[in-house]
Amino acid sequence: MNGAPGKPTGSHNLQTDDQGRLRHFLSTEGLSRETLLGILDTAEGFAAVGERAVKNVPLLRGKTIINLFFEPSTRTRTTFELAAKRLSADVLNVTVATSSTKKGESLLDTLHTLEAMYCDMFVVRHADSGAAHFIASNVAPHISVINGGDGRHAHPTQAMLDMFTIRHHKGSIEGLCTAIVGDVEHSRVARSQIHALKALGASEIRVVGPRTLIPIGIEDLGVKVFHDLREGIRDTDVIMMLRLQRERMRGGLLPSMQEYFHFYGLTEKKLAVAQPDAIVLHPGPLNRGVEIDSEVADGSRSVILQQVSFGIAIRMAVMSITLGSHPKAQRQHADADADAD
Amino acid sequence: MNGAPGKPTGSHNLQTDDQGRLRHFLSTEGLSRETLLGILDTAEGFAAVGERAVKNVPLLRGKTIINLFFEPSTRTRTTFELAAKRLSADVLNVTVATSSTKKGESLLDTLHTLEAMYCDMFVVRHADSGAAHFIASNVAPHISVINGGDGRHAHPTQAMLDMFTIRHHKGSIEGLCTAIVGDVEHSRVARSQIHALKALGASEIRVVGPRTLIPIGIEDLGVKVFHDLREGIRDTDVIMMLRLQRERMRGGLLPSMQEYFHFYGLTEKKLAVAQPDAIVLHPGPLNRGVEIDSEVADGSRSVILQQVSFGIAIRMAVMSITLGSHPKAQRQHADADADAD
Amino acid sequence: MNGAPGKPTGSHNLQTDDQGRLRHFLSTEGLSRETLLGILDTAEGFAAVGERAVKNVPLLRGKTIINLFFEPSTRTRTTFELAAKRLSADVLNVTVATSSTKKGESLLDTLHTLEAMYCDMFVVRHADSGAAHFIASNVAPHISVINGGDGRHAHPTQAMLDMFTIRHHKGSIEGLCTAIVGDVEHSRVARSQIHALKALGASEIRVVGPRTLIPIGIEDLGVKVFHDLREGIRDTDVIMMLRLQRERMRGGLLPSMQEYFHFYGLTEKKLAVAQPDAIVLHPGPLNRGVEIDSEVADGSRSVILQQVSFGIAIRMAVMSITLGSHPKAQRQHADADADAD
Repeated sequence: MNGAPGKPTGSHNLQTDDQGRLRHFLSTEGLSRETLLGILDTAEGFAAVGERAVKNVPLLRGKTIINLFFEPSTRTRTTFELAAKRLSADVLNVTVATSSTKKGESLLDTLHTLEAMYCDMFVVRHADSGAAHFIASNVAPHISVINGGDGRHAHPTQAMLDMFTIRHHKGSIEGLCTAIVGDVEHSRVARSQIHALKALGASEIRVVGPRTLIPIGIEDLGVKVFHDLREGIRDTDVIMMLRLQRERMRGGLLPSMQEYFHFYGLTEKKLAVAQPDAIVLHPGPLNRGVEIDSEVADGSRSVILQQVSFGIAIRMAVMSITLGSHPKAQRQHADADADAD
Repeated sequence: MNGAPGKPTGSHNLQTDDQGRLRHFLSTEGLSRETLLGILDTAEGFAAVGERAVKNVPLLRGKTIINLFFEPSTRTRTTFELAAKRLSADVLNVTVATSSTKKGESLLDTLHTLEAMYCDMFVVRHADSGAAHFIASNVAPHISVINGGDGRHAHPTQAMLDMFTIRHHKGSIEGLCTAIVGDVEHSRVARSQIHALKALGASEIRVVGPRTLIPIGIEDLGVKVFHDLREGIRDTDVIMMLRLQRERMRGGLLPSMQEYFHFYGLTEKKLAVAQPDAIVLHPGPLNRGVEIDSEVADGSRSVILQQVSFGIAIRMAVMSITLGSHPKAQRQHADADADAD
Repeated sequence: MNGAPGKPTGSHNLQTDDQGRLRHFLSTEGLSRETLLGILDTAEGFAAVGERAVKNVPLLRGKTIINLFFEPSTRTRTTFELAAKRLSADVLNVTVATSSTKKGESLLDTLHTLEAMYCDMFVVRHADSGAAHFIASNVAPHISVINGGDGRHAHPTQAMLDMFTIRHHKGSIEGLCTAIVGDVEHSRVARSQIHALKALGASEIRVVGPRTLIPIGIEDLGVKVFHDLREGIRDTDVIMMLRLQRERMRGGLLPSMQEYFHFYGLTEKKLAVAQPDAIVLHPGPLNRGVEIDSEVADGSRSVILQQVSFGIAIRMAVMSITLGSHPKAQRQHADADADAD
């Protein structure tokens, strides 16, 4: 019972085993180009499953997956639940009021109790950055942890479904000029996107937004900062809009939603400066008329609904890859007697 | 993104395809006698399944059904979930707070997001009349919509399980003298019952209740209005009680529950004026001592619990018929690229 | 609709059929040594299932199990849901606000409605003692009822997983010196443990706690009462800690949590007076630093996490045994016509 959720470190060691296979999926940071491409390639096979009349495959039959949500998120929970069911796993939704697990100890007790029920995977959603890493550091060796979003830190399956969508349209991430637009400061998605875009070879990664919503020092990640939307998206191939996290903003960061839309809302007119075949992504749910105009959201360059479809395939890929890294012959079960004798 | 939930129109066109097959099930209104009999006949096969030791059939294996509930209803949600599971479909319960979808735009975004996850069916429950029609008008062509109750408008699966129960006991709906008793004004069931009884050939349909709870102009639907309970149920073969929707009533419509029971509560004594073999239905949950006396509810003419059993069979029938109208060979999938290119 | 939840009586008759087979599992009280051993032996087979790569067995395929929870309990609900899914049953979670079922009549209506959906089993959790018995007395003959905890009365599956864990470590319950420590007054587990320990031949059963938390007259059950923790656990083979039910306590029973821990919290130091190979059990969730010290909870004599693992096996055993006592050939279905004609 050592330590409490904090700054995640060494996630690449935690995420992969000695043979470099993915055990947990916590962050796109620290994962190799090969590992990320492996996820995308696996997802290609699953993307076709959704369109079949029978959408289930028996890959994870008899496995137990727990959606362990410390903050509510119907949309994310639904996509993971669907992905798990299409892999024929059993899924349990467990919502934990964070008030009851304020102390690290209690969180660990909850965790060890669920783990003693012989689960195979936790999909973790938590308001604190580093929570998924903390849990992955403390689970039994046969359990995989998927980060379903932790604080402002990471949302790696969202970033990978974005990569999948971009590759679907552009053939490859390599050499693309990309822009991430909006509330980067409060976004768990932006960090995951930046790491993935870098690993997969994007030629340019820009972040665009008002000074109050761009974290100081983000240039250290290898991105270019723009405070003018038109300058930021000029000649880009890919524009990744962020949701304005109104519920996370403390007063004073923005004058008004109207003014935000005036300066940073993506309209068809502003979009004209991007490449003619540029695509527009958004993780949803949309704030129409705030960060994006309906004409763009529903327009011909929007790939927003495809992102949702591909999101199921990406989650199926990550689930099957991480559980597949624990082959039956090698499974090290928490020996039932080990704790007691 | 045109329009918002409103007065449903042309539901018969919306519900059936060019070959007259049922695509959605939104309302009993506008459906032919043949279509309604087809539902009842299909349900006959499923009614036997519930009594078997193994109650599941693999008809909808690999299909994804979403219970999309904009207002809570444990009972209705449970019956649809059970029906879907007995057909071996995967079911997801998604409860949407209406506050977040007040605007038609947001409702459509929610809808298109769920649809992008490759669902096959939405079972919709909504407090607004016409919501299910609005959704059916806007979903992708491969998705079926079942109305699980919308405002005061319709609750067609409830009406069809009533028809099934009546036919089970009387052999046919044709030629029966029927009465619908109680809070017709606030009932979504009554309208669905009237349309179904008419289509299936009931010889007489009466509505019985106080003036404040009978909508003005209901005679236009071809029913006879009674304000005296004994007159209204005299010589009837079938008495369909309605639940007094206390939560929907605005002050002043009724003097008191006690007085309501005195005038409109069904007792054994009042029931004596009906046909000796008359049956009594109620959609549940019962307000004992308000609209119905326990002696009647638990008595020999009550078919109330059978309605519940048959309700599972009716929902299985409607689900398998509507999804069956999209044969694999003809499925028009929302092409993943259509939105973007 | 006769009577309301009250003092359960004659549970042994209610629980078993004419051939002595277990129909319901409501209480460890009144069940024979053979019946309890039968549950433990059946669970042995299921304990191994949890460790397999594929954890599901098709024993209850096509059965419908309803988790009928009148008070919330994520932990208990989760274990029953997992057990049911591993037996391949369909599970529905139905949470009933007790406010809507205050009257016995309404509870029965809820029950009969669910029963009419052709369920096979209710797992019942209720704040009132005797609720599970009341329900078992009133369900149709083909339905089994499992008590998932009722008021202060019983929590029999918890007691049986304790017995399983003890037998796993000690080989047998016979001849063991055992102590139940803590808030016996408010515990539903303690009563179930005492009856099970007696039936399975424990040589001594002690209850240990402050006067305010030990019910008057408990000696009549054949236990020895201790108010000093060291005296109470001296030379014991098994120490069964109870959770301090803080939420159930009315003011004045205890001076403070700190003082409780000082006198009744189990520490390594106090534990030294027990047998060297004594084991420590706790039903969870732990109040660390209140009834148990972390050093003990996480120490070598703690079998607390094993209890969780074995709890799944015990619930699988109880579910398959009770449903197995209704062989297909003998199933007496509630005849659909019986109520009406």
